[in-house]
Amino acid sequence: MFLLVNGTTGESMSLSVAERKLLAEEWCQRAKGRMDNVIIHAGCMSLKDSQDLARHAADIGADGIAVISPSFFKPRTAESLRKFLQEVASAAPALPFYYYQIPSLTGVNVPVRDVIEDIEKLIPSFRGVKFSGSDLLDLGQCVSYSQPRWSILYGVDEQLLAGLAMGANGAVGSTYNYIGRYVNQLISAFETGDLIRARTIQFKIQELLGYAIKLGFDLGVNKQLMAKVSGLFLGPPRLPVMPCSPAHAQLIAEKYHGIFV
Amino acid sequence: MFLLVNGTTGESMSLSVAERKLLAEEWCQRAKGRMDNVIIHAGCMSLKDSQDLARHAADIGADGIAVISPSFFKPRTAESLRKFLQEVASAAPALPFYYYQIPSLTGVNVPVRDVIEDIEKLIPSFRGVKFSGSDLLDLGQCVSYSQPRWSILYGVDEQLLAGLAMGANGAVGSTYNYIGRYVNQLISAFETGDLIRARTIQFKIQELLGYAIKLGFDLGVNKQLMAKVSGLFLGPPRLPVMPCSPAHAQLIAEKYHGIFV
Amino acid sequence: MFLLVNGTTGESMSLSVAERKLLAEEWCQRAKGRMDNVIIHAGCMSLKDSQDLARHAADIGADGIAVISPSFFKPRTAESLRKFLQEVASAAPALPFYYYQIPSLTGVNVPVRDVIEDIEKLIPSFRGVKFSGSDLLDLGQCVSYSQPRWSILYGVDEQLLAGLAMGANGAVGSTYNYIGRYVNQLISAFETGDLIRARTIQFKIQELLGYAIKLGFDLGVNKQLMAKVSGLFLGPPRLPVMPCSPAHAQLIAEKYHGIFV
Amino acid sequence: MFLLVNGTTGESMSLSVAERKLLAEEWCQRAKGRMDNVIIHAGCMSLKDSQDLARHAADIGADGIAVISPSFFKPRTAESLRKFLQEVASAAPALPFYYYQIPSLTGVNVPVRDVIEDIEKLIPSFRGVKFSGSDLLDLGQCVSYSQPRWSILYGVDEQLLAGLAMGANGAVGSTYNYIGRYVNQLISAFETGDLIRARTIQFKIQELLGYAIKLGFDLGVNKQLMAKVSGLFLGPPRLPVMPCSPAHAQLIAEKYHGIFV
Repeated sequence: MFLLVNGTTGESMSLSVAERKLLAEEWCQRAKGRMDNVIIHAGCMSLKDSQDLARHAADIGADGIAVISPSFFKPRTAESLRKFLQEVASAAPALPFYYYQIPSLTGVNVPVRDVIEDIEKLIPSFRGVKFSGSDLLDLGQCVSYSQPRWSILYGVDEQLLAGLAMGANGAVGSTYNYIGRYVNQLISAFETGDLIRARTIQFKIQELLGYAIKLGFDLGVNKQLMAKVSGLFLGPPRLPVMPCSPAHAQLIAEKYHGIFV
Repeated sequence: MFLLVNGTTGESMSLSVAERKLLAEEWCQRAKGRMDNVIIHAGCMSLKDSQDLARHAADIGADGIAVISPSFFKPRTAESLRKFLQEVASAAPALPFYYYQIPSLTGVNVPVRDVIEDIEKLIPSFRGVKFSGSDLLDLGQCVSYSQPRWSILYGVDEQLLAGLAMGANGAVGSTYNYIGRYVNQLISAFETGDLIRARTIQFKIQELLGYAIKLGFDLGVNKQLMAKVSGLFLGPPRLPVMPCSPAHAQLIAEKYHGIFV
Repeated sequence: MFLLVNGTTGESMSLSVAERKLLAEEWCQRAKGRMDNVIIHAGCMSLKDSQDLARHAADIGADGIAVISPSFFKPRTAESLRKFLQEVASAAPALPFYYYQIPSLTGVNVPVRDVIEDIEKLIPSFRGVKFSGSDLLDLGQCVSYSQPRWSILYGVDEQLLAGLAMGANGAVGSTYNYIGRYVNQLISAFETGDLIRARTIQFKIQELLGYAIKLGFDLGVNKQLMAKVSGLFLGPPRLPVMPCSPAHAQLIAEKYHGIFV
Repeated sequence: MFLLVNGTTGESMSLSVAERKLLAEEWCQRAKGRMDNVIIHAGCMSLKDSQDLARHAADIGADGIAVISPSFFKPRTAESLRKFLQEVASAAPALPFYYYQIPSLTGVNVPVRDVIEDIEKLIPSFRGVKFSGSDLLDLGQCVSYSQPRWSILYGVDEQLLAGLAMGANGAVGSTYNYIGRYVNQLISAFETGDLIRARTIQFKIQELLGYAIKLGFDLGVNKQLMAKVSGLFLGPPRLPVMPCSPAHAQLIAEKYHGIFV
């Protein structure tokens, strides 16, 4: 099982480098011996900061790093994105490296398949992709090209079943912090060939997320649901993310309990 | 098996109403007794023309009609789209009615799930959707809501497997005019639970379409491939669609033969 | 002064070809001797219908034709769009020809400057552009390239002053049916070098349109305002355009009267 | 005259906080007594870092700060963006504060007019906006609402004349580092009412930028032009921005010299 520290849900992009290091250290210490893999997200707008975070992850004994593309200055070609990732990876060459794709937030639309072409020549430590886009032509071509030691993890929670059908070999998603149990059931059903059951669970997740999206689903809502459903109190989000209104949180929690009795 | 006349590949939107009627008549005559279902696409920019085409389809003995949303003036709400579809359907109330969704061409982003809410109260002849979008949250919610007498047909060829996993009960696509054999194999493999095989075929289709897309895939290319691969000579497309350059057609045909030996 | 018949506000795209011909005839008859120029819009999705309408415009003595790009199948290059326009123009070679650009509705983003390059070699009757986009780099390059016998008319009402500054030599806009008096004042002020006054009027128009946009500005609202403000009762719009709710129409009319006392 | 340090052209978003402080210090020291106004850009993804940079700007004697919206987590409402800006401003309450808008890079589409509503109640030090968007309805409404002590500076170089016509009272742009002389001529011509001359210069700038955009205009090209045209050698850009190819730089420089003889 993977643990991804300082990812999107962790609001890493809203933290200072020092804050990110502190969190990484805490998680590495506490997870030792309890989780298989602690992956630290090291991506940020600045190559220099990303390299600093990669080096730090190696120093504190993380099991791997993941890197998002910069998104203020967006790479316009696979070539520039690959160079950026290579420069970060080279700061922690011994750590397994994952490319973290999430085009809805970054606005970077370089096909992942183009990024991973012969990527081990540039990044020998490359071990996979967190694919959080909805372009399943691209996902399929990544799976088709994937090497045995790579993981292609799918990250769009509301259509996980489609990602699994297309061959993704795992899932990473923010809502799994509170519906993780059902996601595990979905994956088990899929793996045993029980598509009817997998679909039934997927539809429930869609019903919940579809409802939340209509109310204005974002990280603030997500955090509130973690608190309401899983009892994980994480404090309020940092600006510009706004806290979820108590009224909305209540409605979504009720919907959750109505769907997953 | 369905036959969809005057759809996108048939360039219906580039035809006059008289030309569309002529084609519909020819197909109805020639398909009688040979195809289960001849569905005539009756959608156009003008409600009045759409009603005219719906009435005509009933007159010539078609088995159903399908209707695309107008896309110059785009419906802004499910309500206005539902009213438009209702007005067309009411011109041929005895014919099974299908809503034909294809947001990449129409730019209409009303969720299909919102369109079909209690739709039989407005359109008693409603029988399904050709869903040609990539929003699988919407697709899943449509499947989940679908009635036994409805068909939810998926129309994004390069990710058909994802549509099937999400519960679509059929496929309609332009490339099936020349890779239909492989698509049938994909669907059979999926239905017998052989996901590995289904995925292998899907990846081949993706490889072909991914290649064609990089060269500039459009209706002109599609028609050229029908000629090259299936021997269906359909003549050149009508402006503003341009014919495929012979050089590109050759490259794509070679790719096709390299993949599907 | 130009009169554009069967344009966007006239909902031409929602009419049948026969209805468009009827309207064109009525306008040509009634405007004879009263307007300088009756331009008939002949564009539609089908090249064949567009040619039919162009020929008809010539037959009934129109002073010119304007043509929008097809937008279901979108031209992907200037070349295909130019060929389409050429084919329509050639059906009425004696009539002055205008290209009618409105990317927010068509989704066609071919730069106008590329369309008009050496255009008189393809369309000897070419006389100008109705430019209804917000890309002022493109507008400026069109003005810079424009020939003395051409008109570059600007069609984004809420930023007309910017279009005039960039060198547009006229304005065509749907809201001019009810705020035409103020637009004439704006243009006069601009032409006499009184930018302060031109700006004051432009800001008032922006205040009105900005307010209407927040309430959901569309053709239905526009028609209601024509009725409320100018006393031009045009009947309800055709689906999929919905009529403006009386409540919204009232609010916008009040805003109008508050701004333009 | 304003000097904006650590803006977009300065690649501030690709720098670490320490690097940004170093640059700010250098510029403040060297500009003292030579420039009217040294404005330090303090915006970044993290509120905490932005506050740190704002405080630092005050400490080193800057004349003001400018702040871009965070763009990984995008503010979804004017309210959340206003709160973010307020929190940064409050870290340097004595410094004049400017909101730096550039939606093409941030993807943040909150109307500026909504941001500045009664803004001095939240940010007493508010002094204006760098408006780098193409929505001139929004720009006009900002100018119309602007207070005498505010500056509304326009930042889309290829349509500066439109911004001036709409009432912007200044210009900030990256290309002004090498075509500044012509921009000053454009502004002078505009201010003396010579629109013909202003337009002639604007068209030349458009011809250059239009040409560069077709070749793939970005920050790397911009920097190369600064070197080629103004002799300002700034070193290569930092990844993910790629350096301009020598061939492209040569073509654009030739175009420049052909236009501005």
